[in-house]
Amino acid sequence: MSAHRINEKTRGVYVISVTPFRDDGRLDLQSVESLMQFYLDAGVDGIVILGMMGEAGKLGDEESRIFARTVFEVVDGRVPVAVGVSNAGLGNLVGLAHDVMEMGAAGVMVAPLNSLRTDAQIAAYFTAVCAGLGEDVPVILQDFPLATTVQMSPPLIDRLVEDLPQIAMLKHEDWPGLNKLTALRETEASGRRRRISILTGNGGLHLPQELDRGADGAMTGFCFPEMLVEVCAAHAAGDRDRAEDIFDAYLPLVRHEAQPGLGLAFRKEALHRRGAIASPFVRQPGPKLTRSDMKDMDRLIDRVHRRLEKLEG
Amino acid sequence: MSAHRINEKTRGVYVISVTPFRDDGRLDLQSVESLMQFYLDAGVDGIVILGMMGEAGKLGDEESRIFARTVFEVVDGRVPVAVGVSNAGLGNLVGLAHDVMEMGAAGVMVAPLNSLRTDAQIAAYFTAVCAGLGEDVPVILQDFPLATTVQMSPPLIDRLVEDLPQIAMLKHEDWPGLNKLTALRETEASGRRRRISILTGNGGLHLPQELDRGADGAMTGFCFPEMLVEVCAAHAAGDRDRAEDIFDAYLPLVRHEAQPGLGLAFRKEALHRRGAIASPFVRQPGPKLTRSDMKDMDRLIDRVHRRLEKLEG
Amino acid sequence: MSAHRINEKTRGVYVISVTPFRDDGRLDLQSVESLMQFYLDAGVDGIVILGMMGEAGKLGDEESRIFARTVFEVVDGRVPVAVGVSNAGLGNLVGLAHDVMEMGAAGVMVAPLNSLRTDAQIAAYFTAVCAGLGEDVPVILQDFPLATTVQMSPPLIDRLVEDLPQIAMLKHEDWPGLNKLTALRETEASGRRRRISILTGNGGLHLPQELDRGADGAMTGFCFPEMLVEVCAAHAAGDRDRAEDIFDAYLPLVRHEAQPGLGLAFRKEALHRRGAIASPFVRQPGPKLTRSDMKDMDRLIDRVHRRLEKLEG
Amino acid sequence: MSAHRINEKTRGVYVISVTPFRDDGRLDLQSVESLMQFYLDAGVDGIVILGMMGEAGKLGDEESRIFARTVFEVVDGRVPVAVGVSNAGLGNLVGLAHDVMEMGAAGVMVAPLNSLRTDAQIAAYFTAVCAGLGEDVPVILQDFPLATTVQMSPPLIDRLVEDLPQIAMLKHEDWPGLNKLTALRETEASGRRRRISILTGNGGLHLPQELDRGADGAMTGFCFPEMLVEVCAAHAAGDRDRAEDIFDAYLPLVRHEAQPGLGLAFRKEALHRRGAIASPFVRQPGPKLTRSDMKDMDRLIDRVHRRLEKLEG
Repeated sequence: MSAHRINEKTRGVYVISVTPFRDDGRLDLQSVESLMQFYLDAGVDGIVILGMMGEAGKLGDEESRIFARTVFEVVDGRVPVAVGVSNAGLGNLVGLAHDVMEMGAAGVMVAPLNSLRTDAQIAAYFTAVCAGLGEDVPVILQDFPLATTVQMSPPLIDRLVEDLPQIAMLKHEDWPGLNKLTALRETEASGRRRRISILTGNGGLHLPQELDRGADGAMTGFCFPEMLVEVCAAHAAGDRDRAEDIFDAYLPLVRHEAQPGLGLAFRKEALHRRGAIASPFVRQPGPKLTRSDMKDMDRLIDRVHRRLEKLEG
Repeated sequence: MSAHRINEKTRGVYVISVTPFRDDGRLDLQSVESLMQFYLDAGVDGIVILGMMGEAGKLGDEESRIFARTVFEVVDGRVPVAVGVSNAGLGNLVGLAHDVMEMGAAGVMVAPLNSLRTDAQIAAYFTAVCAGLGEDVPVILQDFPLATTVQMSPPLIDRLVEDLPQIAMLKHEDWPGLNKLTALRETEASGRRRRISILTGNGGLHLPQELDRGADGAMTGFCFPEMLVEVCAAHAAGDRDRAEDIFDAYLPLVRHEAQPGLGLAFRKEALHRRGAIASPFVRQPGPKLTRSDMKDMDRLIDRVHRRLEKLEG
Repeated sequence: MSAHRINEKTRGVYVISVTPFRDDGRLDLQSVESLMQFYLDAGVDGIVILGMMGEAGKLGDEESRIFARTVFEVVDGRVPVAVGVSNAGLGNLVGLAHDVMEMGAAGVMVAPLNSLRTDAQIAAYFTAVCAGLGEDVPVILQDFPLATTVQMSPPLIDRLVEDLPQIAMLKHEDWPGLNKLTALRETEASGRRRRISILTGNGGLHLPQELDRGADGAMTGFCFPEMLVEVCAAHAAGDRDRAEDIFDAYLPLVRHEAQPGLGLAFRKEALHRRGAIASPFVRQPGPKLTRSDMKDMDRLIDRVHRRLEKLEG
Repeated sequence: MSAHRINEKTRGVYVISVTPFRDDGRLDLQSVESLMQFYLDAGVDGIVILGMMGEAGKLGDEESRIFARTVFEVVDGRVPVAVGVSNAGLGNLVGLAHDVMEMGAAGVMVAPLNSLRTDAQIAAYFTAVCAGLGEDVPVILQDFPLATTVQMSPPLIDRLVEDLPQIAMLKHEDWPGLNKLTALRETEASGRRRRISILTGNGGLHLPQELDRGADGAMTGFCFPEMLVEVCAAHAAGDRDRAEDIFDAYLPLVRHEAQPGLGLAFRKEALHRRGAIASPFVRQPGPKLTRSDMKDMDRLIDRVHRRLEKLEG
């Protein structure tokens, strides 16, 4: 199983999974199978559950574990599965982390609490988190200022990575973030810090440029995950233009799904239309699509298809 | 039991209870008895558990219910007990609320989510909360911008109170808040809105002035709750000067405990010294007192005692 | 001159002008002529100076007036010129507004102070602003929560528009904002509020969808303003597909320029390369492009050109 | 004149001066003389103009200079006068700083821009500020997170002080801030960093405890500045109890004036009543006192006087 743990060389596309609910708002465990198959069919290299876009904060403690257990059973080791465990209480965070590691998790993802501000506060927090987890739990550092209001500079990330050996990966979703990526990779190139894996989020909005700057892949939940896979593959194969051509075909939709808040409703609606989940239900408080939103979506998806045809034709 | 429910005329001191932990961080159910007795001996009119200063966000779902159940057993109807149920997920909020109402809660307290901004967003949120709770669950609206970053204007509160009949009480801790109190009471006096109970928080920092402006009492957890009780009693008896003399004697300590974050550690240390709880443990992430903090506390408490002696002498 | 004032029917593209500096950081009045000609050649319907992306907050009081005066002389009535006048002090705001109106401004743009939160606070602020300006000064309400942290709901905007007749236009850059646009237009359609002009910002990131929802055009400073003009023209002509084809060709660059903070440096670099301004200098504190940023830019602009050729070919 | 410059050993009370306006909102240069005499009569060791509570952001560039020039003429070297120069534009900041240094300023005070978050960003900002000012301009670092939203940790302050020799003083108004003070003084005691002067703000709310922790005095504008002077003097003379007795007598008023926003209106009203300024006018946007506020103030000031009599009697 340890072959499945994330490490400092992990590459590719780790999809951020939604959490499927039924129309009445209860966990939809039936859809876990179709959803995981959908992600695997798209060619993802790993799956991340209970992230922010997995509505983790709206699940009960017991529900989180039931959903996680179901995912691990369904995926059955075909790809690594990492788990978001961010929580206002350190004890809760550690408790969930230990439970999912026992289920076979590849690692856990932790975002800084939104009350943290200074480098010293953030470093103290992750030091406490890692001590609580124990050194054999691989950690993914989530750097998402738009959602957390917490900013982590490259020197701070360098320090966290040096001080806390179990940090294996950065989920990079600072915005703007390209020069941050470059700074982090330059520190490694100069030998001043060990390497970490860096996968990028933000719905994939800057993926080609991020790969140029040294990202190892993507960790996001765009509703057409096959795009992320193809772009990363083409880029890895050195076909930079093809990577960007594919990306650009989807970009109007990527940009549309990247709207804060509302994006999750688009994502679940698209996954529902594509057969991945039985219901597009988003738990309250959460966004709902209007009729006009539906029309936008029809049109944007239709245009993506037409452009892909032209590209392939 | 309905005699114990909060309503629009509720008055007096509702103490915000801490949650006692053992030195190893686990729930200290043994201390619940001494803690509740301490509050009752201080003369409080009611008790509120699982508030922000009750470290509610650092308890697991199961722990919250175990603690609540123990409190209800110990208090055994001697005073009303209300329960904080704020949660990022509406389903979680409603689930806990229904569980504690079944245990005999006098009502539930709900703060707006810290992502809410506009009047329309806040109104939609509380409308959804009240619909989820059902109309027979009394609601305490918590208005604490320093902690939530959400501001609720008097016109918005007027509207919420009119639209949602189950809102029985406002926990007022805006800062500054005196003119807000006056505005809310003037609306009632003019007959434009039904009355609600208003208890004030903020550690009691402005209590005499708040009572002057029409507050019905205090809802806060100052480590000498007998002060809150005496001040409210003297004020209610028309002895305005005595109310303020008592208050002023404690004010250096009130102001010290009101320091954001650190205040909880002071409060628990004082409650520990006074025999109310076995350990002053605060769960991570949380503040810790330094040796200098301890010296400040010794000195401040000593000076309060000396001043009270002079006052009484 | 009053023919040049903005009003509730104003349509088209109002470009947000940069403020040109020399390499030593001083105002570059020489470049005003080339810059204005560049915008006019792109076919814009109006120009807005001293906006956020015009680095207004980094100009001295005297500089603002010198720059404004130069712009009015150069443009010489060929298109309307509106002026951003947001300021922490109401007196300063009014003073600048009166000065530029005397120079011939078509109106002034005002964003809410970033300390405002509740509907009541925001309404009180704009009431004071409008009283200070006097009723004959047309006002553009700038709604840009990402920059100001202030959110204005559709009901609040309805109220402001009804109460303050001089508000002629909304600069809409909420995000997400499409349903807000629809809500605002539906209120007008139902006759519950007078019409206002709505131009959209956010760098143009959602322009085709915004036009679908009823926007009257764009008010933003994208470095290829001719795109904004062509998209609005095609959309107005009913050629929805062509509007979106043109837009999509530029979208990778639009998205790149939309990066907060860094975007201004891209914009000025592009305007410099295109001959509009002599220097891409951004005043401190402000962003600087790295060598990698330059490469991204080369590549993105090159790809836009190739795609446009294919589109036209 | 250099004897009047602040340095790393500056001690005592530096009062934050209000800016007097006439009832019509214009600068009241006539009141500058009475106001400065009032401060000097209270025994202050220095004066700071154009701070946040000096409504600096609501003055025009020219007004700031006229007011500063008048203050320097009136004070005429009797005590040092420092000047707040914070500004969104670095050029504006430097321009004002150079102008006031030429007038005879003892130093300039700079707060971090409210957009700064990481240690790296803050350090880069102050490095640019100091470079712009030139190394012979003494700098007061203003650390006021409640107003700026920027937090500076002790390690960051250590670094700034080491890297930028012209930083002579910290205006400390973090909250809570006592352990921060202790940490900063311990670093100095251990020889790891040169000494700086630390004066504390926050309206004086924690002054006795701050002096215990190593503060060199106060920099705040409490409306009875003689209290600050007496408390600092008694503390410096080793009479810790007397310092706190005096302080506690004023504490109800200190706490009342410390209410964010509203506090400035109280302060100006009290200074007006005490004859220091001709009008309590606060520029818009700004707070206004209600009739109830006036009654609170009457009562609080009356109680302070009665308590002082008892203390002295």
